[in-house]
Amino acid sequence: MRGLMQDRPLTISALLPRVESNFGHKRIITGGAVETVLTWNEVAPRIRRLTRVLESLGVPAGARVGTFAWNSHRHVELYVAVPSAGRILHTINHRLFSEQITFIVNDAADDILFVDRSILPVIWPLVPSFHKVRYIVVMDDGGDMPIPDDPRILDYETLLDREADGPLDDVVTDEYAAASLCYTSGTTGNPKGVLYSHRSVVLHSLLLLGADVFALSENDVVAPIVSMFHVNAWGLPYAVMLSGSDLLLPGTAMAPKELVSLLSRHRATFSAAVATVWRSLIPMLADHDLSSLRHIACGGGAVDDALSSTYENAIGIPLTNAWGMTETSPVVTTSRLATHHAGMDREARRLLLGSPGPAVPLTEIRVVADGVEQPRDGSSQGELQVAGATIAGAYFGSDAATDAFTADGWLRTGDVATIDERGYLRIVDRTKDLVKSGGEWISSVLLENAVMSDPRVQEAAVIGVADAHWGERPLACVVPHPGVDLTAEDVRAHLRGRVASWWIPERIEMMSEIPKTATGKWSKQALRQRFADSPGDSR
Amino acid sequence: MRGLMQDRPLTISALLPRVESNFGHKRIITGGAVETVLTWNEVAPRIRRLTRVLESLGVPAGARVGTFAWNSHRHVELYVAVPSAGRILHTINHRLFSEQITFIVNDAADDILFVDRSILPVIWPLVPSFHKVRYIVVMDDGGDMPIPDDPRILDYETLLDREADGPLDDVVTDEYAAASLCYTSGTTGNPKGVLYSHRSVVLHSLLLLGADVFALSENDVVAPIVSMFHVNAWGLPYAVMLSGSDLLLPGTAMAPKELVSLLSRHRATFSAAVATVWRSLIPMLADHDLSSLRHIACGGGAVDDALSSTYENAIGIPLTNAWGMTETSPVVTTSRLATHHAGMDREARRLLLGSPGPAVPLTEIRVVADGVEQPRDGSSQGELQVAGATIAGAYFGSDAATDAFTADGWLRTGDVATIDERGYLRIVDRTKDLVKSGGEWISSVLLENAVMSDPRVQEAAVIGVADAHWGERPLACVVPHPGVDLTAEDVRAHLRGRVASWWIPERIEMMSEIPKTATGKWSKQALRQRFADSPGDSR
Repeated sequence: MRGLMQDRPLTISALLPRVESNFGHKRIITGGAVETVLTWNEVAPRIRRLTRVLESLGVPAGARVGTFAWNSHRHVELYVAVPSAGRILHTINHRLFSEQITFIVNDAADDILFVDRSILPVIWPLVPSFHKVRYIVVMDDGGDMPIPDDPRILDYETLLDREADGPLDDVVTDEYAAASLCYTSGTTGNPKGVLYSHRSVVLHSLLLLGADVFALSENDVVAPIVSMFHVNAWGLPYAVMLSGSDLLLPGTAMAPKELVSLLSRHRATFSAAVATVWRSLIPMLADHDLSSLRHIACGGGAVDDALSSTYENAIGIPLTNAWGMTETSPVVTTSRLATHHAGMDREARRLLLGSPGPAVPLTEIRVVADGVEQPRDGSSQGELQVAGATIAGAYFGSDAATDAFTADGWLRTGDVATIDERGYLRIVDRTKDLVKSGGEWISSVLLENAVMSDPRVQEAAVIGVADAHWGERPLACVVPHPGVDLTAEDVRAHLRGRVASWWIPERIEMMSEIPKTATGKWSKQALRQRFADSPGDSR
Repeated sequence: MRGLMQDRPLTISALLPRVESNFGHKRIITGGAVETVLTWNEVAPRIRRLTRVLESLGVPAGARVGTFAWNSHRHVELYVAVPSAGRILHTINHRLFSEQITFIVNDAADDILFVDRSILPVIWPLVPSFHKVRYIVVMDDGGDMPIPDDPRILDYETLLDREADGPLDDVVTDEYAAASLCYTSGTTGNPKGVLYSHRSVVLHSLLLLGADVFALSENDVVAPIVSMFHVNAWGLPYAVMLSGSDLLLPGTAMAPKELVSLLSRHRATFSAAVATVWRSLIPMLADHDLSSLRHIACGGGAVDDALSSTYENAIGIPLTNAWGMTETSPVVTTSRLATHHAGMDREARRLLLGSPGPAVPLTEIRVVADGVEQPRDGSSQGELQVAGATIAGAYFGSDAATDAFTADGWLRTGDVATIDERGYLRIVDRTKDLVKSGGEWISSVLLENAVMSDPRVQEAAVIGVADAHWGERPLACVVPHPGVDLTAEDVRAHLRGRVASWWIPERIEMMSEIPKTATGKWSKQALRQRFADSPGDSR
């Protein structure tokens, strides 16, 4: 017997009426050379006109609409209009290698692209390699890149001006319909597409409002520094449509000085960024009032405790962690202090908040080794697997590998983890980042953290390198703070007593910067390429 | 094109694994002659065994399982086990008139009943009138009612003891399947059934976790005083399975002194009750430490500001309001202070928190007059209508009236309301509670509040009575505080300047108590019956 409740689908199209009814006065602020402040009352008609632009340009239902754009109100307009009108929003990272961009645009068969003018120089040279793209709509974000004289190039504001306001029509009513597409950065093989549904986007947004998740409220000023071309900027642009928070977007103002100024002037209360960005802001903390911040989240890997401690000392709150990936919408866990943590001292609390934490509602996690689910005891290790309505069940496109999912439909994350008896997740390492030395596992993450606990160290990354005797040995790449003299022996001295003696690397490479991936994570692939040709012998 | 996310239904059956994985150590406390404290680790196996009891007793899939029970861990076990096992939980208010109970049990065609021993005296005499009931399972809550010697009577604990623990089997996987059934109290006509789905229960639970709704957190001790036989106790027992809050249930300890003691000793942080209960606790506030309470919600009607003020003075926080009905799961709005309320003084804040507030996510409200949606301007009145995935779309059972729903599928609430430009709802009155005097509407709610703003008044209810001249005139029923001398003229003197002069009632009846409905609201029906035979002439 079915329940007798109203049949109201969970769709992105249903978010806009709510935001207009309750939050028309709330703001979307976009940083940049010219800072813009728009209310939803101003943005909503632009969103509706944008759905008509898609119609006028003949973008077929279900077609992919690619975006190369910073975090801006225009990108928000696309976020809402494209899925609402039954097309699929395909956000693309313009910092990928050219070959990857071409692969992604063609694999998705993008019909049309929306490109920020400041990003056009990167994309325009690649256009000849795009098979299906019919139009490139340029969004003027203040860059001075000359617009090529080409019939395929259209102007965003001109297109909007041509359309009249009116109700959204042909809105999506099937919550399982595809809403948006994002490719994983893919450290090996070709990037793989994750195709979110309206349902998964709305449920994930609702989760972010939860008191023990991000507790997004009407009183918040939410500042996603994480890119809107990367996992929907953690879903935050959609979540504020439910919470009514002001949305503060950096636009092109991504330099550390500009970011801190934005956060401070607009009294941001919540922000999310990767560690590299948080680290870059440190020199500016003393000169800006950031007392409005109540929650700062750090994703893309374990939180460096020295970094978190710097924030706790400078602005009164430590960094918090969240675990997720493109395949998981992304938020699977968020760190938080529970009742059983009462009485912890400041350092222990900070370390706990720097760990992934328990899974959010509707989401299940487990660790599996040799096909067997491991005990939730905080020490049994296995591959982390994830299930839930906001978790990918398959990949989109030509390279849709199937070994990423278990027979019972869980996502295999490739991370090695433990879960304790209260559901707290600890990531031990990426499977491929574990170093197997003499038959024993060394966690590169734990070793990196131990190196970085030295206040003289700015960044450190550990990889495994072939070793004639041990099979594999850890190699540490270490970046000292500017002006600091640091030797490999200093690093080893610091490590003694902090890690098992057999973990201490024989090879320590001092460098001025760790190479980064397009999403700002350390590129262990680049480090491996650099050091793979010099196997050692540590007998 | 469908999204490629995992197909994970939103079901009550999926809540139990989560609560065991993360919150097995969290507690369900049940008050009563013998107070019990159980953890979810203890309750979960009982829930699984209970699903096997249903199987052993031959309760068919989809059959209704009736409950007559207080708020207790046993009732929680039924809340989870019955829907998880594909049967439909049917909670029944034992305080209804006998005829209504018989109607409801037969209309639902209950196959089996679970009855608290302390309630058995009310139910047992009615059993001969129940057409389909095969078994009555008695749950011993400390009452001394002798158990009748009848083969249909079974003992709850004995049945549980007979079953072995094991995985839930035959769990529901269709989120649209019916989960539970609750009849409206029905002031006119027969009670009507609302048939909730797994989906609506899970979504509603998720909403309650929202920062701007009830912000339920693992750190909370949630105390639903609102009955579990009434709209799922606002969904709180399900919500704590997502949030991990401790659950504090009064059991039979419903006397004001016992309630305050429970809230105080167990450091409750959140509680929900109707005004009558909050009012009854006042004499005990001074003697108990209730400083742990962070949010106290008052449902079932507008918040009496004098009552709220008493709480603000006594324990530091005012009462908050929430609007809903059985048909709406129930929470549709929750009061809260938004950014645009900054700078309000204490009294204005309290009045605002005593008003319904804006709609929660996923839920839409509108006011309609003469078939036309009215402007959201805070003054245009019309019937409040509600839409959303947690709102009933039809009634269950034989008396399933259809005029309660609009052609476009919205629920007609029968309340007259306004909505302002920021979505804040104000209930003007029940349509049938408006008094039409000389062609102009008088709001009985506003008039009641004006009478109750007199500190000498304990309770007041206003009804319309026929009047030879004006068509209808308001009649005020007023209960002074014990020991206070108060005359009708005193009441009128208080009203002068507070309401329009033509609102001031000619007829004011002093009484010692306002009759209540089975759900603790004022029974305007009883008052009308009492005074309808004496029409006035107020020329």
